[in-house]
Amino acid sequence: MHKKRGRRKGEKGRTAMSCSSSDLAPLLGGGMNGSAAADYICNQLSDAGHAIDTTYLLFSTYLVFAMQLGFAMLCAGSVRAKNTMNIMLTNVLDAAAGGLFYYLFGFAFAFGKPSNGFIGTRFFALKGVPDPSFDYSNFLFQWSFAIAVAGITSGSIAERTQFAAYLIYSSFLTGFVYPIVSHWFWSADGWAAAGRNAGESLLFDSGVIDFAGSGVVHLVGGVGGLWGALIEGPRVGRFDHAGRSVALRGHSATLVVLGTFLLWFGWYGFNPGSFAVILKAYGPSGSSQGQWSAVGRTAVTTTLAGCTAALTTLFGKRLQTGHWKVADVCNGLLGGFAAITAGCSVVEPWAAIICGFVSAWVLIGLNHLAAALQFDDPLEAAQLHGGCGAWGIIFTALFATERYVNEVYPGRAVRPYGLLMGGGGRLLAAHLVEILVIAGWVSATMGPLFYAMHKLGLLRISADEEMAGMDLTRHGGFAYVYHDEEPKPATALSLKYSTTRVEPLLQKPVDVEFS
Amino acid sequence: MHKKRGRRKGEKGRTAMSCSSSDLAPLLGGGMNGSAAADYICNQLSDAGHAIDTTYLLFSTYLVFAMQLGFAMLCAGSVRAKNTMNIMLTNVLDAAAGGLFYYLFGFAFAFGKPSNGFIGTRFFALKGVPDPSFDYSNFLFQWSFAIAVAGITSGSIAERTQFAAYLIYSSFLTGFVYPIVSHWFWSADGWAAAGRNAGESLLFDSGVIDFAGSGVVHLVGGVGGLWGALIEGPRVGRFDHAGRSVALRGHSATLVVLGTFLLWFGWYGFNPGSFAVILKAYGPSGSSQGQWSAVGRTAVTTTLAGCTAALTTLFGKRLQTGHWKVADVCNGLLGGFAAITAGCSVVEPWAAIICGFVSAWVLIGLNHLAAALQFDDPLEAAQLHGGCGAWGIIFTALFATERYVNEVYPGRAVRPYGLLMGGGGRLLAAHLVEILVIAGWVSATMGPLFYAMHKLGLLRISADEEMAGMDLTRHGGFAYVYHDEEPKPATALSLKYSTTRVEPLLQKPVDVEFS
Amino acid sequence: MHKKRGRRKGEKGRTAMSCSSSDLAPLLGGGMNGSAAADYICNQLSDAGHAIDTTYLLFSTYLVFAMQLGFAMLCAGSVRAKNTMNIMLTNVLDAAAGGLFYYLFGFAFAFGKPSNGFIGTRFFALKGVPDPSFDYSNFLFQWSFAIAVAGITSGSIAERTQFAAYLIYSSFLTGFVYPIVSHWFWSADGWAAAGRNAGESLLFDSGVIDFAGSGVVHLVGGVGGLWGALIEGPRVGRFDHAGRSVALRGHSATLVVLGTFLLWFGWYGFNPGSFAVILKAYGPSGSSQGQWSAVGRTAVTTTLAGCTAALTTLFGKRLQTGHWKVADVCNGLLGGFAAITAGCSVVEPWAAIICGFVSAWVLIGLNHLAAALQFDDPLEAAQLHGGCGAWGIIFTALFATERYVNEVYPGRAVRPYGLLMGGGGRLLAAHLVEILVIAGWVSATMGPLFYAMHKLGLLRISADEEMAGMDLTRHGGFAYVYHDEEPKPATALSLKYSTTRVEPLLQKPVDVEFS
Repeated sequence: MHKKRGRRKGEKGRTAMSCSSSDLAPLLGGGMNGSAAADYICNQLSDAGHAIDTTYLLFSTYLVFAMQLGFAMLCAGSVRAKNTMNIMLTNVLDAAAGGLFYYLFGFAFAFGKPSNGFIGTRFFALKGVPDPSFDYSNFLFQWSFAIAVAGITSGSIAERTQFAAYLIYSSFLTGFVYPIVSHWFWSADGWAAAGRNAGESLLFDSGVIDFAGSGVVHLVGGVGGLWGALIEGPRVGRFDHAGRSVALRGHSATLVVLGTFLLWFGWYGFNPGSFAVILKAYGPSGSSQGQWSAVGRTAVTTTLAGCTAALTTLFGKRLQTGHWKVADVCNGLLGGFAAITAGCSVVEPWAAIICGFVSAWVLIGLNHLAAALQFDDPLEAAQLHGGCGAWGIIFTALFATERYVNEVYPGRAVRPYGLLMGGGGRLLAAHLVEILVIAGWVSATMGPLFYAMHKLGLLRISADEEMAGMDLTRHGGFAYVYHDEEPKPATALSLKYSTTRVEPLLQKPVDVEFS
Repeated sequence: MHKKRGRRKGEKGRTAMSCSSSDLAPLLGGGMNGSAAADYICNQLSDAGHAIDTTYLLFSTYLVFAMQLGFAMLCAGSVRAKNTMNIMLTNVLDAAAGGLFYYLFGFAFAFGKPSNGFIGTRFFALKGVPDPSFDYSNFLFQWSFAIAVAGITSGSIAERTQFAAYLIYSSFLTGFVYPIVSHWFWSADGWAAAGRNAGESLLFDSGVIDFAGSGVVHLVGGVGGLWGALIEGPRVGRFDHAGRSVALRGHSATLVVLGTFLLWFGWYGFNPGSFAVILKAYGPSGSSQGQWSAVGRTAVTTTLAGCTAALTTLFGKRLQTGHWKVADVCNGLLGGFAAITAGCSVVEPWAAIICGFVSAWVLIGLNHLAAALQFDDPLEAAQLHGGCGAWGIIFTALFATERYVNEVYPGRAVRPYGLLMGGGGRLLAAHLVEILVIAGWVSATMGPLFYAMHKLGLLRISADEEMAGMDLTRHGGFAYVYHDEEPKPATALSLKYSTTRVEPLLQKPVDVEFS
Repeated sequence: MHKKRGRRKGEKGRTAMSCSSSDLAPLLGGGMNGSAAADYICNQLSDAGHAIDTTYLLFSTYLVFAMQLGFAMLCAGSVRAKNTMNIMLTNVLDAAAGGLFYYLFGFAFAFGKPSNGFIGTRFFALKGVPDPSFDYSNFLFQWSFAIAVAGITSGSIAERTQFAAYLIYSSFLTGFVYPIVSHWFWSADGWAAAGRNAGESLLFDSGVIDFAGSGVVHLVGGVGGLWGALIEGPRVGRFDHAGRSVALRGHSATLVVLGTFLLWFGWYGFNPGSFAVILKAYGPSGSSQGQWSAVGRTAVTTTLAGCTAALTTLFGKRLQTGHWKVADVCNGLLGGFAAITAGCSVVEPWAAIICGFVSAWVLIGLNHLAAALQFDDPLEAAQLHGGCGAWGIIFTALFATERYVNEVYPGRAVRPYGLLMGGGGRLLAAHLVEILVIAGWVSATMGPLFYAMHKLGLLRISADEEMAGMDLTRHGGFAYVYHDEEPKPATALSLKYSTTRVEPLLQKPVDVEFS
């Protein structure tokens, strides 16, 4: 007989429709036939529910995946032309290496069951999947989140990091550091999850409501990048002899806008998609109130936060610099998205506007601070994802509404909600713990890793190479060749690293194998 | 008890499955139990219907949103490199400012209920949403349409308009002019809507069938652009001393193709998505005929119209110019899409081919006319969206089939349909009224606005600035930096506007705040 | 009364839920009322099923369509700047001309019913659609596949082919050659289809399991490209006087990465979308096992194969060339996707890793071979789509699991499956036949076509034009204009082909028509 099946939000697990044959059977006359008829009908509805929810989750996943393309284009446009191939390659490899590591280890650490509050211990290489709570689509959705984290960090250390160092930290972050964090806050077994298993106590009787990951994704990526950029130091020429900030402009505003729009597009998978299921009634079935409406509301709050942040940045920067700067508007927009990500499902649309407005100033302020401290993050990733992400966590604890919190995180009699909405301070307490714990955990793992690579000479490229650009020295040439005819002026360095026009691949193997 | 709920097409409102417990109850034995069982089953099906339809509508919305990226890339590629950041910034701000204004005012003017035939008066800042006919997803879908309108107009006035003027007209268009038009033709209360409330009389007993907005979106945007471009006059150098047209080529054909394909991709949200719901049987339930099939047909007609227009343009331009021109093919394609948008859901696939074929010649002819009249529209937006949009309105009145009109706009005993399909001239009369009314309304609102800004010196940039490019003078520098080393030759003007390499943001604030 | 409706996988036909009123009626008490109630309920569920499946199929189609944009960007980035417009135009026209030809002929040849084993004979211009097995959405999905084939071939002959030749072969391929192949392997009437009509004998009692088209799409496109590139010969300068390979680098690595990510994105429509329906229980309804889970698994195998191939290529090429090359990684990734396409739905995730690993070496090896044989394929399309596609066909015959084969291709008592999984050699035999038959058919049709065009002087452009670039000689100018001011150095050739700045379109027509 088909049973009602609860759903643990944190796990983003699979579920089914709420049709209950034990409820329906008596209505159909009871007895063996009534029971069988109820089973039959509910099973059909259950199948339909699986199909709807999987469609919803997979297409959300594809949107989140498109963010990886967005990152690649945003990063490419934000660095100088001479390092374009380098940073794009890291973005491709985030997705590719992330795919293997998250399949082998990451998903198991994050969502493996049984588990303890700290780490999961099953589902390595998808062994045991599908099970009643996780289908393949859940894995793929989580993978698309994992690779985003590595993408964030890569921006902070752009234009000066050895490629091998990149491969090392990226695997470690995707395969271990991030999955642990997502276990804590999103797994039904996680010690700090708001959607923890029924019967287990919640942190401050509340748990953390980080719906789509202002902390779990953005703060993790931002803190990782912070340590990387701090340990590496600024790019050559980023600050002049007097310590003043010198703009090292990215090479293509078009790519910046392309990447930003793609990230916006993908965020509709990231935030609304984090419901994982869309077919779930709130209250009695048939009332037209349900998760489908919450999904739409989440898309709306996401949109409004980003739009507000973009406009605030536009005018804020205009006042400060006298220019209307498209790259600043793009970063402001993304900061608004990073901020609303935690609370997108549990706040009112008007609150999202506040979220975005403050977020813009957080980013502007942190960029001032970074310049004053001679901290160089080519993509502003630590400030944007870390700073605005942290603000988003606090924002959620201030503005989450009672009704939405109880609809999205059901199953507890009483739940704390936003401080400014009259919900007391326990949610805020839990959220401050989230910030501290994430900052601590990522610092304790990624900090030493970057430092060790630094000491071993594996982290930063040489100043010579940095001046020449990594594409030339490591990736076989510049990313662009617009004019075949015009030879570039030869310099000592370019000659040293020049790629012979005869393909090196074929010079020797041909001799050996084919001639 | 769950009731059958009708759906007003024009409103693109939310709906549910057609399961009727009053129909089902007697079949289940009647009595209290039969009635309860029927309620139970229909309520489950209603939930599923909400989930399916919301999934359908939201992902359609995301596709329409992707068109904004398409516009940005198409516009960027179609202007000269020196104005790239300017036009991309306007596209980002269309979406961002449009988000706030449509949330605050636009949606209320368009779909607020209660309303009169001219304007809606509720739902400001989403107050009162969700209600039985509008969920958050409906708002977001409509927002994605609103921002497209501003995007169209921005193309017409590209490369010579002050940024402040852009912000002013864009807000006015998105927040007021366009919402009013969409109220007239798409709201159930609109005086000219084909899907008007039952019992209210229809314009010429027919109402206007502008399914996805050849008029409501494209003609509105095109007429807005027409006035802007007329009042501003041509770009410097666009016509030589003899009045002959001089090509001011866009700077990147790649971006043009990228933008065009993204618009094509997004049009699958625009046209088929305008059904808003996909779960609706035509005729008796279970017959396999339903809106799902009409949705697919709409995607097919859209595709065929665009493809035909592209091919017609290819050969037409080849004969005229001797070249196979990719930008022309792209514009031809988009003209075909703009034209089929009104009738996509109510015509046969073969008719879509006629639509696209004629559309290509409409665009070619209007481009000739524009050149002869020394009208300069850098994106051909007035010709393309205005001209082909108007053709699409007429086309629909000629080729709409009886069956499809009655399936898509149900609830009236007799409906006029396409003149050439034997449906009489009343649909055509209504559609001619649509063209006149839209042209009049947009001219009466946007014309004076552009003229006032012109008189106040707020509209056009100086000739100096126009020669230097707006990116340099207003947006902080060129969009592209491919070669760090090569200094650009300094000119008087570039020196005047040159951005200091030391970031202006930090020069002073640092002194004040941090040192 | 609503009946259970079977579904023929190969046809990707439409289906409905499995609700059977004849099963349900007795449970509801039998008699007339019970029967009517069962009909009522099952019909409602059938409607929901149509809506779900159509939503799933259409959005998958849109993703596959996005691959055309991916091809355009990948191709553009992989050729030299001087041929960018040319290759992008071919990609736009693949979609546009493919739309018309597939509508008029292709779909009918492929899936028209009734048909014989070789070719379909109905559904020309969609006459007879929708019918119980094909809705409009099925047509559009198949169209999106057809245009991909032409896109593959166009890469092989890039940078040296006359535009008219392109139009000829592309129409022939999309309208005839490819549809025939898809009929053989994917139509329920096809002689080699694994999902052949019940009662008809299967090739080697097995039929071919080419789920999403490693053979039907990729091998067809690759073999077509092979003949084109062979008959045209290498580009000028591609091999030096000693026969050594000389790199003719593409002009933009950014576009290569953009295109690759878009193809990855679209592959989630290509592979999982090939199920066509997602609402189908495996085994008894309500068990949570169903096609929705298989769809997710297919997305996972696709991801893992591509990721593994990318990483393998990264390290493989690093060892060989000393560089981390982004373009190579991109091609490796795409090769992995092309390979997993045949077996994506019937193998375990771990097997997908093997598929991708081998695929990378297949591509590397074939690229060596191509260089040794002085075969020039600018996009490596023959090697990638042909070679990796062929490997994917063999891979499927080795690793297909018994359970998945029977779930995805139901309705036969016993089915052969992968050789290494204990399923015997009959599947492998059928798959070797597939490779031979496709290679033979495409060679027999496209080979003579290319040869005839070659003999008639229609195929290759002149050496002069090749040096100047086709954009200048045929498409009206270069794709990029970054600096308005800087005049390009005039050469004899550029002068010969220079576009006058006064638009040719208007020079004369204006005289004739408007003055």
